[in-house]
Amino acid sequence: MGTEISTIGEFGLIKRLTEDIKLVNSSSIKGVGDDAAVLSYPSDKRILVTTDMLMEGVHFDLVYTPLRHLGYKSAVVNFSDIYAMNGTPKQITVSIAISKRFEIEHIDEFFSGIKLACENYGVDIVGGDTTSSLTGFAISITCIGEVDKDKIVCRDGAKETDLVCVTGNLGASYMGLQLLEREKAVFRTSKADDIQPDFAGKEYILERQLKPEARKDIIEALDKAGIIPTSMMDISDGLSSELLHICNQSQVGCRIYEENIPIDYQTAVMAEELQMSPMTAALNGGEDYELLFTVPLANHEKISSIPGVKLLGHITKKDLSAALITKDGKELELQAQGWNPLINK
Amino acid sequence: MGTEISTIGEFGLIKRLTEDIKLVNSSSIKGVGDDAAVLSYPSDKRILVTTDMLMEGVHFDLVYTPLRHLGYKSAVVNFSDIYAMNGTPKQITVSIAISKRFEIEHIDEFFSGIKLACENYGVDIVGGDTTSSLTGFAISITCIGEVDKDKIVCRDGAKETDLVCVTGNLGASYMGLQLLEREKAVFRTSKADDIQPDFAGKEYILERQLKPEARKDIIEALDKAGIIPTSMMDISDGLSSELLHICNQSQVGCRIYEENIPIDYQTAVMAEELQMSPMTAALNGGEDYELLFTVPLANHEKISSIPGVKLLGHITKKDLSAALITKDGKELELQAQGWNPLINK
Repeated sequence: MGTEISTIGEFGLIKRLTEDIKLVNSSSIKGVGDDAAVLSYPSDKRILVTTDMLMEGVHFDLVYTPLRHLGYKSAVVNFSDIYAMNGTPKQITVSIAISKRFEIEHIDEFFSGIKLACENYGVDIVGGDTTSSLTGFAISITCIGEVDKDKIVCRDGAKETDLVCVTGNLGASYMGLQLLEREKAVFRTSKADDIQPDFAGKEYILERQLKPEARKDIIEALDKAGIIPTSMMDISDGLSSELLHICNQSQVGCRIYEENIPIDYQTAVMAEELQMSPMTAALNGGEDYELLFTVPLANHEKISSIPGVKLLGHITKKDLSAALITKDGKELELQAQGWNPLINK
Repeated sequence: MGTEISTIGEFGLIKRLTEDIKLVNSSSIKGVGDDAAVLSYPSDKRILVTTDMLMEGVHFDLVYTPLRHLGYKSAVVNFSDIYAMNGTPKQITVSIAISKRFEIEHIDEFFSGIKLACENYGVDIVGGDTTSSLTGFAISITCIGEVDKDKIVCRDGAKETDLVCVTGNLGASYMGLQLLEREKAVFRTSKADDIQPDFAGKEYILERQLKPEARKDIIEALDKAGIIPTSMMDISDGLSSELLHICNQSQVGCRIYEENIPIDYQTAVMAEELQMSPMTAALNGGEDYELLFTVPLANHEKISSIPGVKLLGHITKKDLSAALITKDGKELELQAQGWNPLINK
């Protein structure tokens, strides 16, 4: 049995959630507790701002999402956007709206995940809003970060002959989601009392869905290697959709090779089990939070030596459009079939 | 008949809403269209960040709130928090979650209000998120502003003998809300087909509720007069609650005088009609978005000459606590009975 939030009210809840916060970044001057947070950045830095809104029933299902993981993921997906600009996340604000069914202990769990993510990535919680909703749980996080002003990487800088690179592997998070949805359906339709979900050997794809990480390590490795990508973004809606963003904004085309697309063993096994194509998960699945970027051809040797980076193909002239070369040599035009919350309901 | 949002999808909607945005502030380097917005502030400025979340059915009722007004108000309440730090708002991000009942034209209306507020206050829209919700409309806005680093005003600087000042008048927004709720109830219970709400002579309190303004003018007047308040905040939860914040954070007490509390004629008339105390509306009503601040006693003459500023009383030692002196000379301890979304459901 938990404790009703109305016993402590909004100010009591805010105090409980924020009283142990210690600011670690020199750019965080004043955090929670006034009309606004106060930050201070040196003038040789550019300031990056990104924001994400997550709605219960649309972006997450509390039937199989632990609140602590949800907190962690909510923060990390924002950090990922800052890294995707070649920056470093420094502050977040966390706003939540909660319905009556949530108790103080639920919110504690959610915030413990947010705080763990902030600790792992060196980010300060400097503000937010805590309010109620008629139904469901709504989360809105804004992340602020910094980047040296001559090192910003946008989506519009890819040039012909640049190498197209991706980190980690793709499609795992999507297959993790399919697994969770399958087990939820089994649980709901079963008459047995003692039914347990079957997750053995599938821990990796579950973790990729429930507790993803942002590629801080890659941004640091690129910096160490002296590489500034010509364009970059994180993969939240699927490789196809993101590659098309880079091609459209950079006014170029690309050729990527199916055989180069990194897919984990567990992703492939799960796809086979569900009679789906692992390539569809990789191209259109989304929620990978890997980095997609382009580097000049001259960086070939340097980029090949960074662990966790895979070369997918290269940038072409715009009139060659964006295409996937399949293993049997066919050329397929890439389509943006990524997850779209306003269509895929 | 409107147009379903699924006909254009998330990217189509974002394009529609943002393609006419022109950035006006030199600190806005890059707005919507990448993983994060890019800002640049000089090092003699502090950066202010505030965020607010508004949920349908909790913070607003679309039965009587025009979407254009809702957009305007959503932006302005954030600007108000930046002014309350003695700052100037410069950028906002706008995130919305919408259910299936919303059509493109609804979102156009809402954004037209946001854009009008941004135009009136010189603020750039630099980012946001557009997604779906299972039920209701959710809005989350983050505002970024700037202030000279030696001019920041927080809640914790009030000193004994300082004058307590407030702008405009109080309680009007609350009485406007009561009027709207009354007319809604009349409409719902009436059997007549042609019933029309009775708003004659009450335009001011309705405007205060539906389309409030932030006190940019006062921040500019204080600057012109060479006054830096010792503490300041905006009144969103009611005068009592906010005065207690200043007293608690500044470790002081205060004496304010009932006869000095500014109440508009329409507020008083509406309160009488509803057999309520206008003083309750002023002390605990909330959503006034006026500024509450303290200045050194030496500023008495200067502050008295600024139109729209009223002296409420003065700051005392902490052990005298925070009290209201009534018109008949009684001393009442101030209580935080402001609106609390996690209790007052």
